[in-house]
Amino acid sequence: MAEFFSTVDAVRYEGPESDNDYAYRVYDADRVVLGKTMREHLRIAVCYWHSFSWAGNDVFGAGTFDRPWIDGELAPMDAAKVKMEAAFEFLTKLGVPYFCFHDVDIAPAGDTFAESRRNLEVMVAQAEQHMAETGVQLLWGTSNCFSHPRFAAGAATNPDPEVFAYAAAQISAAMEMTHRLGGANYVLWGGREGYETLLNTRMRQEADQLARFLHLVVERKHELGFAGTLLIEPKPQEPTKHQYDYDCATVHGFLDRYDLAEEFRVNIECNHATLAGHSFHHEVAYAVDNGIFGSVDANRGDAQNGWDTDQFPNSVEEVSLAVYEILRGGGFDTGGFNFDTKLRRQSMAREDLFHGHIGGIDTLAQSLLVAAELLERGTLESLRDARYAGWSQGLGAQILAGEHSLKDLEQQVASGQLDPTPVSGEQERLENLVNRALWRAIAAG
Amino acid sequence: MAEFFSTVDAVRYEGPESDNDYAYRVYDADRVVLGKTMREHLRIAVCYWHSFSWAGNDVFGAGTFDRPWIDGELAPMDAAKVKMEAAFEFLTKLGVPYFCFHDVDIAPAGDTFAESRRNLEVMVAQAEQHMAETGVQLLWGTSNCFSHPRFAAGAATNPDPEVFAYAAAQISAAMEMTHRLGGANYVLWGGREGYETLLNTRMRQEADQLARFLHLVVERKHELGFAGTLLIEPKPQEPTKHQYDYDCATVHGFLDRYDLAEEFRVNIECNHATLAGHSFHHEVAYAVDNGIFGSVDANRGDAQNGWDTDQFPNSVEEVSLAVYEILRGGGFDTGGFNFDTKLRRQSMAREDLFHGHIGGIDTLAQSLLVAAELLERGTLESLRDARYAGWSQGLGAQILAGEHSLKDLEQQVASGQLDPTPVSGEQERLENLVNRALWRAIAAG
Amino acid sequence: MAEFFSTVDAVRYEGPESDNDYAYRVYDADRVVLGKTMREHLRIAVCYWHSFSWAGNDVFGAGTFDRPWIDGELAPMDAAKVKMEAAFEFLTKLGVPYFCFHDVDIAPAGDTFAESRRNLEVMVAQAEQHMAETGVQLLWGTSNCFSHPRFAAGAATNPDPEVFAYAAAQISAAMEMTHRLGGANYVLWGGREGYETLLNTRMRQEADQLARFLHLVVERKHELGFAGTLLIEPKPQEPTKHQYDYDCATVHGFLDRYDLAEEFRVNIECNHATLAGHSFHHEVAYAVDNGIFGSVDANRGDAQNGWDTDQFPNSVEEVSLAVYEILRGGGFDTGGFNFDTKLRRQSMAREDLFHGHIGGIDTLAQSLLVAAELLERGTLESLRDARYAGWSQGLGAQILAGEHSLKDLEQQVASGQLDPTPVSGEQERLENLVNRALWRAIAAG
Amino acid sequence: MAEFFSTVDAVRYEGPESDNDYAYRVYDADRVVLGKTMREHLRIAVCYWHSFSWAGNDVFGAGTFDRPWIDGELAPMDAAKVKMEAAFEFLTKLGVPYFCFHDVDIAPAGDTFAESRRNLEVMVAQAEQHMAETGVQLLWGTSNCFSHPRFAAGAATNPDPEVFAYAAAQISAAMEMTHRLGGANYVLWGGREGYETLLNTRMRQEADQLARFLHLVVERKHELGFAGTLLIEPKPQEPTKHQYDYDCATVHGFLDRYDLAEEFRVNIECNHATLAGHSFHHEVAYAVDNGIFGSVDANRGDAQNGWDTDQFPNSVEEVSLAVYEILRGGGFDTGGFNFDTKLRRQSMAREDLFHGHIGGIDTLAQSLLVAAELLERGTLESLRDARYAGWSQGLGAQILAGEHSLKDLEQQVASGQLDPTPVSGEQERLENLVNRALWRAIAAG
Repeated sequence: MAEFFSTVDAVRYEGPESDNDYAYRVYDADRVVLGKTMREHLRIAVCYWHSFSWAGNDVFGAGTFDRPWIDGELAPMDAAKVKMEAAFEFLTKLGVPYFCFHDVDIAPAGDTFAESRRNLEVMVAQAEQHMAETGVQLLWGTSNCFSHPRFAAGAATNPDPEVFAYAAAQISAAMEMTHRLGGANYVLWGGREGYETLLNTRMRQEADQLARFLHLVVERKHELGFAGTLLIEPKPQEPTKHQYDYDCATVHGFLDRYDLAEEFRVNIECNHATLAGHSFHHEVAYAVDNGIFGSVDANRGDAQNGWDTDQFPNSVEEVSLAVYEILRGGGFDTGGFNFDTKLRRQSMAREDLFHGHIGGIDTLAQSLLVAAELLERGTLESLRDARYAGWSQGLGAQILAGEHSLKDLEQQVASGQLDPTPVSGEQERLENLVNRALWRAIAAG
Repeated sequence: MAEFFSTVDAVRYEGPESDNDYAYRVYDADRVVLGKTMREHLRIAVCYWHSFSWAGNDVFGAGTFDRPWIDGELAPMDAAKVKMEAAFEFLTKLGVPYFCFHDVDIAPAGDTFAESRRNLEVMVAQAEQHMAETGVQLLWGTSNCFSHPRFAAGAATNPDPEVFAYAAAQISAAMEMTHRLGGANYVLWGGREGYETLLNTRMRQEADQLARFLHLVVERKHELGFAGTLLIEPKPQEPTKHQYDYDCATVHGFLDRYDLAEEFRVNIECNHATLAGHSFHHEVAYAVDNGIFGSVDANRGDAQNGWDTDQFPNSVEEVSLAVYEILRGGGFDTGGFNFDTKLRRQSMAREDLFHGHIGGIDTLAQSLLVAAELLERGTLESLRDARYAGWSQGLGAQILAGEHSLKDLEQQVASGQLDPTPVSGEQERLENLVNRALWRAIAAG
Repeated sequence: MAEFFSTVDAVRYEGPESDNDYAYRVYDADRVVLGKTMREHLRIAVCYWHSFSWAGNDVFGAGTFDRPWIDGELAPMDAAKVKMEAAFEFLTKLGVPYFCFHDVDIAPAGDTFAESRRNLEVMVAQAEQHMAETGVQLLWGTSNCFSHPRFAAGAATNPDPEVFAYAAAQISAAMEMTHRLGGANYVLWGGREGYETLLNTRMRQEADQLARFLHLVVERKHELGFAGTLLIEPKPQEPTKHQYDYDCATVHGFLDRYDLAEEFRVNIECNHATLAGHSFHHEVAYAVDNGIFGSVDANRGDAQNGWDTDQFPNSVEEVSLAVYEILRGGGFDTGGFNFDTKLRRQSMAREDLFHGHIGGIDTLAQSLLVAAELLERGTLESLRDARYAGWSQGLGAQILAGEHSLKDLEQQVASGQLDPTPVSGEQERLENLVNRALWRAIAAG
Repeated sequence: MAEFFSTVDAVRYEGPESDNDYAYRVYDADRVVLGKTMREHLRIAVCYWHSFSWAGNDVFGAGTFDRPWIDGELAPMDAAKVKMEAAFEFLTKLGVPYFCFHDVDIAPAGDTFAESRRNLEVMVAQAEQHMAETGVQLLWGTSNCFSHPRFAAGAATNPDPEVFAYAAAQISAAMEMTHRLGGANYVLWGGREGYETLLNTRMRQEADQLARFLHLVVERKHELGFAGTLLIEPKPQEPTKHQYDYDCATVHGFLDRYDLAEEFRVNIECNHATLAGHSFHHEVAYAVDNGIFGSVDANRGDAQNGWDTDQFPNSVEEVSLAVYEILRGGGFDTGGFNFDTKLRRQSMAREDLFHGHIGGIDTLAQSLLVAAELLERGTLESLRDARYAGWSQGLGAQILAGEHSLKDLEQQVASGQLDPTPVSGEQERLENLVNRALWRAIAAG
């Protein structure tokens, strides 16, 4: 078997002082933090699409990457096998426990659905073998129902029910394959479930279609005996002008309304959060607080660009707060941190794949240490407890228990019994506490 | 009684050829369009706060406006009476059927809640008299629970239950006064119901508080026998970093989750829509499609500025599409178009109040004509019908009726029975149709 | 010769009442407005790239368009000839006077530069023949120095001088061909003249390189005897994180600093203006006021999306103000309105190309009528004259003439001689005047 | 003399392990880094306006802060004296070397300019005494020419030349006072030098006015013998829709065009950079590279809010890269880091002023250590050197020396001599290097 990353050996933890570009400075898979190993906390996955299936093209230019498994003159299925070898070599050298894929990432589409399915079956068998040999597992599978022209106007929300049926077929097969590979989750990203113009769109009709589709997905899950979690990935726009799964709050409302909240969790992407006008911290905190948190796509955006740049996470300041909320909520269940992330188009060397992932993984590990420091000291939680203390007793508890009407409260205020004095929200002090924890955690190593 | 706008007479419809700055060119209150007068369709209201209570100050500078009823050295209650005279002179000269107010707009806060309430009662009695004399009615009332320092950390969502109680008192009184004045609606805008930093915030706790508050509002409404509609006004941010009533979809989810959807409708503001990353058209269409549409604050934003500029609507292109969705949904019930709008700080002359309102009202009237033209021709709806026709019969109808599982559909696709061909979404043609309707309606006058 | 648009005949002016989707309602090429025909005012061009060379692909999906001249299995040069036939059929049916192209749009790249140049020469000869037959002329030519991987880190601003040389070669040839075809202008768009990360970038070094390049372009222009105008197209970002030609003010400063301002004008794109945080109106007014206005790419953006959507102009409200400034500045010299515009990916039918262009052209024509109405009435200009009157006499004139020092002025103010009274900026009234002109112009037809 | 911050003693360096909220963990004024003390590197200033002159009001609500020197019932000049005592107590306890002020921050406006100037003289004398007693120095002075209604339409760019004269008077006096106090710089921020609507604006006329004004400022500077630096502060918008000093590139172009570049430097604010669509890093790098860098207002924005939040810097990740560029350019000359920063409206306790400043100062100090680490290792610079090496020899050097024409280069490429191969830009690796330096510096303490 050819070696595709011959300049790089297995990436190991070498500690903060290492000068080796191909080593972890923070991520030490077996290191125990708050009772679990870093591997167990972070559940890191590498995605197939941007890392192995994408050649570096953008809408203004051709692919730039040195990826022999893409550019080759091989027949499609041969190319798929070579790509899988490269992928598992990379996964193994990187030392991460999981990968993720779309159906079309691992198996080429055929001329018919039946042929596509046969291709997928062949490649899933190959994947089983690679997984057995390497111990790499599947964090989640998914189906690409947005690239082919038939999905131009959406998949489940397409005005043409035959397109709904085609998407159903793809997802039926992709769930089956995910189940076969022991996937921990199955993801639905509604890439074109939205609209380009309201002039030709009925939003409520399309919402009903989408809900019907998701109910079918739930039924199929149970029929298969798939024990993983179903995940929806919010994104506000791009490729469509507006995507229905806009953000966590929108998805939450939709799931509740259509009686789907028991069966779905959200897969939050940092860059999708920021495109929706939220911080990553906000989206994670919202999901954790409301019991819909599932998994994370860890890629960041560029604060100056209005599209999804899908870059590797490199801000411990940004990621720590999200990890804090995840830990506060009990940590990942079946989810994990997936790298749905793109190299820059100029990062054309194969080694750049390592640089991106190593930097991203160390950022997650550093963020874990910071979040653990914050949790262990408990300062933030005790200040939050104190701030809301009034609601667990006396007037606050009575109000929540329904013991006061608006008119009652008016009379109490009118009588002069109640005259609240505002107190400082202490935002600056809290921000200092976070930075101090961040610096302490980094210094402690 | 002094005259405050002595340079302007009653503003009348003079038709498109008029050269009079103080005349309507399009708004002809008694003109019948699609079976109702313009007055009945648009239900135009002028707001008290920006138009009469604001002096033109911003965070960088002092007030600039020539408003003797603000600047005067009068005692607060005397000033309130003078302000009300000015307001009703303006409303009458403008010839609009409605006004709107916050409690503190019409009556000064006293040293205690009891005094504030007494001031409010006095001014409501004055308002009753002005309304009787002029025929102007109340579109909605509301309470300002965001300006006073006690509300710095929110009203219903405040960490201090006493602040919740204080807001309850204010709103109890304001609803009572709105009822007394025959208001058609009561509005809640959660100006500081949100957070400045997540570090000191429990979002779920605050959501529970807010829901409890709204249930109390509903009870109070029924206790009062108030027949108007309760309205929530979405806004994504400003003054707070994040407001909970982010957009229509978020509010919709919240209302459903807390069993409040039967009792509340949304009051959509164009500028809040755009700050949330949506078009005005989107927010209105979402609300109409999902049965939560209530009323509109018609002010636009500035596409280059990231804060609420609250300017008078002047884009027929933007407003027509929103009016189209409103008409398609049956038009306003108790709602209407309120001018929650600000003059520019340089527009310091009293006449500028007329320019802003006249231009805004003509924009609404022109938009009504455009929307009516689109509806009467029926082209958009018939194209939408055709686009979704597949869902009302055959496969589409079966899918929605639950007659196919994912696996069934996979088998049909695998067998080659289904292979959808994408068709054009015709966005450019539809946009042309809208422009043609717009130009035809304008030309028809 | 095959017909590619057999369902559409020549598009003609049929007036506002026409129900024909394939007719102009406003654009009447020979109609005289302010002393020139509409054709002469607007100088409309159709671009080759999005209209003929793009298949409807985006970063999330494959091409969707029905374009036999792209999808065919023809040899590259045969395909190029077929494409040119389709293009000229379209141009002729649309009845526009100009087209625009990049080198690679009309001629396929060869294995070597020499072969690419030979291909280009062949296709230029073909174009000459088509132009002679149809009377269509060339508004401008340009060279694509951003799609090929060699330009990933820029062309003139590349850290590798050999890439600078390669770009020089391409542009040398493209200018020569533009000159041969009688092009009225030559455009430079710095697609990747910018940076992805400052960490590897020297901005000043790259600015010096760019200036050197532009001086070479000027020399080459004069050597060729090319009488057209050299145009730079500002864009703030995309594909790169930051483009150096950010906006008109930035380009203006650059041209002045490097002594290039005499030789270059700007080609302003509406969507680039909005991505840079400006209105289209602003960018045009800036360029006209500062003597650097050249030409326009007329495509609009989507206010809710943060990338270049390059849609056909359809807002008369937005375009009229830009046309007003252009007319105020004397109208186009060698420039014109180019449609650097994209269909939506769902607009997959060949007819959609007509819908987009017809709607866009009528929008420009309608905007011309509005701008002419504004200019002829003269209201805006006379109000501006009045507002600044103080600067053409007395104190204002003295100040501009350098007759007062800061200390002099302080003494005058201190003595009480000067105490300015602010006056209304009348923004709302002016906005009403514009809408009234807009409605009058549309009604007048 | 009353003590205003009695709960806080002098803030001292206590190192990373300290649990004292009122201590520095990183900022150790006398610690030497790269040959200078932290005090000398950072030149930290506290501003008067947000910290002492602002009560916590916003456009939606009243002031919330506990500031007896604002709320008191004292006569204006007495209040100004009390405020100055509070300010110098704070400055002294914080231990920073500089402060900054606007004229109206320290001295109340009188009924006439002459009275305002007398007030200012009195307060400047007081300031001299405080400065002598405490050793605190003046980083810069400035004049508020944007809050008073007379400046609603701008100061130097006002359509009324009398307003220009009034601004001239204020700035003449403020420069004199700054000179008297030994200020190191004088700042001009064009708060309302811009437009609200282009409909009433002549941009070129206003640019000419502004240039004239700045030339008068230069003359006055030399007349006074003021040796400090004149600084312009770019900001793209807010309060006006568009400000002329949009960003560094725009200011640079303006200064060059009007022959002012020798006399002015820029005062860059992080939050203004982000509002203009740039990173803070970009604006600093641009200014340093182009020789116009002067000083910094260190406050950050909120990435989710579209207005100037002016918060204390708390991101070492963001600030380090800016400090790196500053050090690379030789460090501050007369400039420094000013805290033009606002507490949140909920931060109503006087102690919050300490939290904000301490956190911000430690962020700057930490960033200095990171930048020093990057500079000392030299990795970034050596990689940049290598990347551009081609331009200092051979072909690159010849091109820059003007030895090749476009046609020459075309011939070389056509002959096959030149065929560049793209190389990786290594963005991910560089980002990892920065994070490694950041973590090393923090760990090293």
